[in-house]
Amino acid sequence: MQPVCLVIGAGAGIGGNVARRFARDGYHAVLCRRTDEEGLKTLVAGITADGGSASGFLLNAVEPDSIEQRVADVEANIGPIEVVVYNLGAQIGNRTLADTSYKAFERGWRMATFGLFRTASSVCPHMVERGKGTILVTSATAAMRGNKEQHSHAAAMGGRRMLCQSLNAEFSARGIHVVHILIDGAVDAPDTLGKMLGPEAFQKLREERGLEHDGLLVPAKIAETYFHLAHQHRSAWTHELDLRAFSDLPWWNH
Amino acid sequence: MQPVCLVIGAGAGIGGNVARRFARDGYHAVLCRRTDEEGLKTLVAGITADGGSASGFLLNAVEPDSIEQRVADVEANIGPIEVVVYNLGAQIGNRTLADTSYKAFERGWRMATFGLFRTASSVCPHMVERGKGTILVTSATAAMRGNKEQHSHAAAMGGRRMLCQSLNAEFSARGIHVVHILIDGAVDAPDTLGKMLGPEAFQKLREERGLEHDGLLVPAKIAETYFHLAHQHRSAWTHELDLRAFSDLPWWNH
Amino acid sequence: MQPVCLVIGAGAGIGGNVARRFARDGYHAVLCRRTDEEGLKTLVAGITADGGSASGFLLNAVEPDSIEQRVADVEANIGPIEVVVYNLGAQIGNRTLADTSYKAFERGWRMATFGLFRTASSVCPHMVERGKGTILVTSATAAMRGNKEQHSHAAAMGGRRMLCQSLNAEFSARGIHVVHILIDGAVDAPDTLGKMLGPEAFQKLREERGLEHDGLLVPAKIAETYFHLAHQHRSAWTHELDLRAFSDLPWWNH
Amino acid sequence: MQPVCLVIGAGAGIGGNVARRFARDGYHAVLCRRTDEEGLKTLVAGITADGGSASGFLLNAVEPDSIEQRVADVEANIGPIEVVVYNLGAQIGNRTLADTSYKAFERGWRMATFGLFRTASSVCPHMVERGKGTILVTSATAAMRGNKEQHSHAAAMGGRRMLCQSLNAEFSARGIHVVHILIDGAVDAPDTLGKMLGPEAFQKLREERGLEHDGLLVPAKIAETYFHLAHQHRSAWTHELDLRAFSDLPWWNH
Repeated sequence: MQPVCLVIGAGAGIGGNVARRFARDGYHAVLCRRTDEEGLKTLVAGITADGGSASGFLLNAVEPDSIEQRVADVEANIGPIEVVVYNLGAQIGNRTLADTSYKAFERGWRMATFGLFRTASSVCPHMVERGKGTILVTSATAAMRGNKEQHSHAAAMGGRRMLCQSLNAEFSARGIHVVHILIDGAVDAPDTLGKMLGPEAFQKLREERGLEHDGLLVPAKIAETYFHLAHQHRSAWTHELDLRAFSDLPWWNH
Repeated sequence: MQPVCLVIGAGAGIGGNVARRFARDGYHAVLCRRTDEEGLKTLVAGITADGGSASGFLLNAVEPDSIEQRVADVEANIGPIEVVVYNLGAQIGNRTLADTSYKAFERGWRMATFGLFRTASSVCPHMVERGKGTILVTSATAAMRGNKEQHSHAAAMGGRRMLCQSLNAEFSARGIHVVHILIDGAVDAPDTLGKMLGPEAFQKLREERGLEHDGLLVPAKIAETYFHLAHQHRSAWTHELDLRAFSDLPWWNH
Repeated sequence: MQPVCLVIGAGAGIGGNVARRFARDGYHAVLCRRTDEEGLKTLVAGITADGGSASGFLLNAVEPDSIEQRVADVEANIGPIEVVVYNLGAQIGNRTLADTSYKAFERGWRMATFGLFRTASSVCPHMVERGKGTILVTSATAAMRGNKEQHSHAAAMGGRRMLCQSLNAEFSARGIHVVHILIDGAVDAPDTLGKMLGPEAFQKLREERGLEHDGLLVPAKIAETYFHLAHQHRSAWTHELDLRAFSDLPWWNH
Repeated sequence: MQPVCLVIGAGAGIGGNVARRFARDGYHAVLCRRTDEEGLKTLVAGITADGGSASGFLLNAVEPDSIEQRVADVEANIGPIEVVVYNLGAQIGNRTLADTSYKAFERGWRMATFGLFRTASSVCPHMVERGKGTILVTSATAAMRGNKEQHSHAAAMGGRRMLCQSLNAEFSARGIHVVHILIDGAVDAPDTLGKMLGPEAFQKLREERGLEHDGLLVPAKIAETYFHLAHQHRSAWTHELDLRAFSDLPWWNH
């Protein structure tokens, strides 16, 4: 049976491109996202058109049992999950404390922290039994430092990072490679940045900083590093690294 | 009206001692804890016997509206909250991932992260209006790095730390001093460490490392630094610091 | 004999004010600085006029044996050094790599890193013998992160911070309290910031951000925290903390 | 002309293996080490036997002008230095403060910090002119935290890390990719670990933790990540990452 790369949060940015990268080298990619069935079908079709193998599922990660059932179903019916890519963000834009509702704060935690906990709780038993597995966690600048109007995002991402370290502490020696990947800059991704900015501002930003300027992180290039990380020899594993455009400032310099 | 020092999580350890320290210098201390009405009365009586002013309330911080109502009630009926000490921990002992229930993980977040968010949401409007205030947050080693069997605790505390930085970013310039105080070691506290270890093991530890050895953090001494922090001049505020016994190793050395 | 507080780097900013603060509570302050004998005399006279006890010495910290002999002389002729304040900076302004000479880079290390190593090597044997002592190290943002045109400063301060942690690891349990104090902002200090900016720009900055705005760190207020740190109970010592003006951004937010 | 990968510190561990890895993909590898001309010849011969292209030079990095002349000579006579691997360590084993001579402390800085500064000062002008280049810096746990009896090593490596961040801040946007690679564990390297432990203890460690156990970092596997880093697309560069054996604890957990 083909090894599976399960991507939770598979839009046209990092998630979809990582799925495609792993499919190119023989993995069956399982793409999950909350909405946009059409977009999901397009991503899956694109991978299969390139000769890869993929499936797509709608999945609402904040709903009870959604992740758990998807993991169980993939393991039972598709193949062993060798790689999980947890790629759900929890950015809700800038909000003052007064404008951050309890509901929004809780939702951030459910997406960014609790969802990863549930994912790990679901896949680790399978991976431990097989003595191997990889959990690649997309993370954000807010995991490293809080900032103005980032109450929800920073609390959720800070929790995510400490959870990654705790998972690593328990599972690394049992063959499960957990990586906290700090995406420290804007990604050229229509489904996230594009939606946040709106089509015009997004296109303008691409023309000014992205495209041939390479000033926005290119998802297909990010995917190369995800793939490398999942194939590091177990004598030389990375747990934390950052990724940003060459022309951008790291979080500690701005 | 006397300025109020509101302590959320006031047992016989850090919380009770910080309350007493502030009461000694003219604050009215409001002590809140979830259970043990008897212990609460004893703490309040101890403060008043020393000539201080204090009140005590049972408060279940994970219950909706509990913190919000207490803050409103104190502001309306007791006095302006100049200092809040958020002293609720979320340590549940060592638990493997398999032994960490979804409920336990969520409860950790409700105590350590969401409770602080609710507290800040409740007191900050009052403090902003007055142009001053102090939020002292007791934190733990787990806020700095994840560890084996600390999934719930580390995720909750990591979130707490990033929330403190975000609160600081929004409110520092408006006169609210937020401090993340890393208690990096075992505290000589009967209501927390004492209960976790049981009376015999706790007494043994005190005799071996605590008492005149000063190898356990002494709550009354911790309280001196809390008091100092709340009275730093606004041109020279501390946002993060660590506290540990001289004979103990810092988190980065073990 | 009076306990001594030895200040290496005692200008009219942090160093001089810390000396004065300790002298106010019974220490004999020994002030050392490289140049400006007149200024040194003024500082010493100011302390003695207030009823304190102080001496002043010119000391070129990059010269071999200068620190070593001063420490030996103080211990032999003045009193036991209970507190050392290592307050030498190594800021040389912004310099590109091309404009940072080997000599400047080495000098930064000699001032910021090697000078502290020599100081610790000189005082620790005395402090170990007495089973107590405090080493307060003024540090800078550059100890936490490198930055553009800060090659020399950041390398020197990064080395200083790791040295502080190493000193703490060896000497804390033997009663020597080492503190790395991150001064994360501009200090209202005529001898350092004032000289770097020139008198007019400095006065302008004071009027815009300092003085009653409290937006520049006030040395006399910083000194209160230095004093508190040196008097923390050994069951609750701080090793690292930051200090900045309430209206300023922490290093991780700019 | 072939692009050059210049390795400063090329023994039979990380340095030699990284040289070999780059040579495999078309770089001319220039191997530099302080001593053991025989070993150097063996490394170069091994690379050329595999069809790669390489040269070897003895180089004493603490000697004035040694690095500068080597860089100038390679640029003039061999080819453009596209990649520099700065692989000199400064570990001198555990030494108390009393046992760390001024000379040893200074030598640590000359090897670990100043040597990198000189290297960067020498190669950056060439790389800036070409608008591209990569500087891969091998670093150690001591760059992240000080520790007992690591005064010299930690101070030198802490300086190195802050220097890497400063170089990145100035040169990243000009196309020079600087990476700080934290080797957070023991490397299966005869020329460093082997010499420190002696042949018998080293072989015992290999049998217990290394070899098929993969519990020591395998240099040839480390080299894969070095190669990947040097070929990341400039829209997605890593500046800091860690590498350790799956069965080992990260620095923040011990």
